[in-house]
Amino acid sequence: MPYSPKSSAKPKENANPLGIFDSGVGGLTVAKKIFELLPNENVIYFGDTGRYPYGPRSKGIVKKFSSQNVNFLLSYKVKFIVVACNTASSFALAGLRKNYDIPLVGVIEPGAAAAIKATRNGKIGVIGTVGTIYSKAYQKAIHRRNRQMKVYSIPCPLFVSLAEEGYINKDATQLIANEYLNPLVKKQVDTLVLGCTHYPLLKKVISRTMGEKVKLIDSAEETAKEVKRLLKIYGLLRNAKGQAFRRFYVSDVPNKFIEVGEKFLKGKIRDVKRIDIDKH
Amino acid sequence: MPYSPKSSAKPKENANPLGIFDSGVGGLTVAKKIFELLPNENVIYFGDTGRYPYGPRSKGIVKKFSSQNVNFLLSYKVKFIVVACNTASSFALAGLRKNYDIPLVGVIEPGAAAAIKATRNGKIGVIGTVGTIYSKAYQKAIHRRNRQMKVYSIPCPLFVSLAEEGYINKDATQLIANEYLNPLVKKQVDTLVLGCTHYPLLKKVISRTMGEKVKLIDSAEETAKEVKRLLKIYGLLRNAKGQAFRRFYVSDVPNKFIEVGEKFLKGKIRDVKRIDIDKH
Repeated sequence: MPYSPKSSAKPKENANPLGIFDSGVGGLTVAKKIFELLPNENVIYFGDTGRYPYGPRSKGIVKKFSSQNVNFLLSYKVKFIVVACNTASSFALAGLRKNYDIPLVGVIEPGAAAAIKATRNGKIGVIGTVGTIYSKAYQKAIHRRNRQMKVYSIPCPLFVSLAEEGYINKDATQLIANEYLNPLVKKQVDTLVLGCTHYPLLKKVISRTMGEKVKLIDSAEETAKEVKRLLKIYGLLRNAKGQAFRRFYVSDVPNKFIEVGEKFLKGKIRDVKRIDIDKH
Repeated sequence: MPYSPKSSAKPKENANPLGIFDSGVGGLTVAKKIFELLPNENVIYFGDTGRYPYGPRSKGIVKKFSSQNVNFLLSYKVKFIVVACNTASSFALAGLRKNYDIPLVGVIEPGAAAAIKATRNGKIGVIGTVGTIYSKAYQKAIHRRNRQMKVYSIPCPLFVSLAEEGYINKDATQLIANEYLNPLVKKQVDTLVLGCTHYPLLKKVISRTMGEKVKLIDSAEETAKEVKRLLKIYGLLRNAKGQAFRRFYVSDVPNKFIEVGEKFLKGKIRDVKRIDIDKH
């Protein structure tokens, strides 16, 4: 963590909002857990719906988009930023930490830590977008903590569209899950990291395919816990008693974000505005 | 056609290249037909892989992206532009024709004309992205020519990812095709417009689902014919005898474009460069 409140040129106000960004709706699974665990925090959420998905894009493009997203959030004086996208966390988090004087948390480290805690046989599966898997971000994060772990990673690119299109309980989704996941079943992993914020929507079919004994790690929950822990350490928890606000911004028209996002959030999305991310 | 060679401030040189743009690899199905029908033409192809797909995005964003794509192609002094993307043709073509002094052809009009020619019972199905279908571009283009036609349109958003991921001969794809297409089978359409440049890759499964008697209209071929017809009319066919060039530009790293694009083009892609589309 390069950030410490002492060294910060502009000390963060604890009443300032938390910033969260994602390529689109997926990060709402993380936002949902943050709302539950930190109900008193003001939150600004940015979903880059004009340029999603990040999963199939290159490192350079994802880094560029992520910097613009951080610049946008900083324009709202956020005190802390959550990179609620696995691909952006894999490709861009390290660079963002170097370039910005604000504490940043991604979804990879919390997920990796939780997987190590959960496994009994030391065999961990990781599924994610092409970008996340090829970056080996989870593998590296797990091995930094414990070199003994065996990590088996597989990209599941179709899961994103299936989740977005609401193909949750369909036979087609089961067939695709069989094809993607059978190699991990054969490796006898006892823990599977859902390394993409879209995948929690497919938890049922993934669990059915892997076998019920396999523990599924949803980074969203672990990330929310880590955010709370760090806000406490930094003295950044909001103490004010008035109702906290939750504002959403997107880079394309909001209708699809609201429609699909409410499935992810399992709740209503009200305060949404479109912004021009190219200006940031 | 607002363009005529006479009124053009800068007369086009017939040795100048044709410009083609698409959101990514899909337009290569159109490029392929143009290469076959116009082997003597120099071609500049731009695939906006840094911002694909266009299908789920709004009209405003697709118009903005399309203008940038045209600006990029104009920097190579193209003589004629093919909008090889159904979503961009639906949302942006009319505006581009107003704003630019260069002849432009999209994929909608040629596909609509071919569908009317093909149908016997006057019942035409159209499948495409959410953007293309909601724009009603095909329906309007068909009814402008013949008000008697019955047009039934259905968005098939998962077909794009399935084609990109090579899910061509899979049971899952058949199940999804059944679900999308059965309403059109029930309507007894005898002609189906493949209103997305990705869909020709799924021709087999679409034909099996619709029934072999249903005629599939692939806009790619019709568009190439229209381009040839217009180049002739405008006196813009290249007469030079030297080998024509085919250059490809993309807005993200080229590796996935080459890998997936070669399936679409059914041939090798050699000369590919990455550019920064935000500068246009």
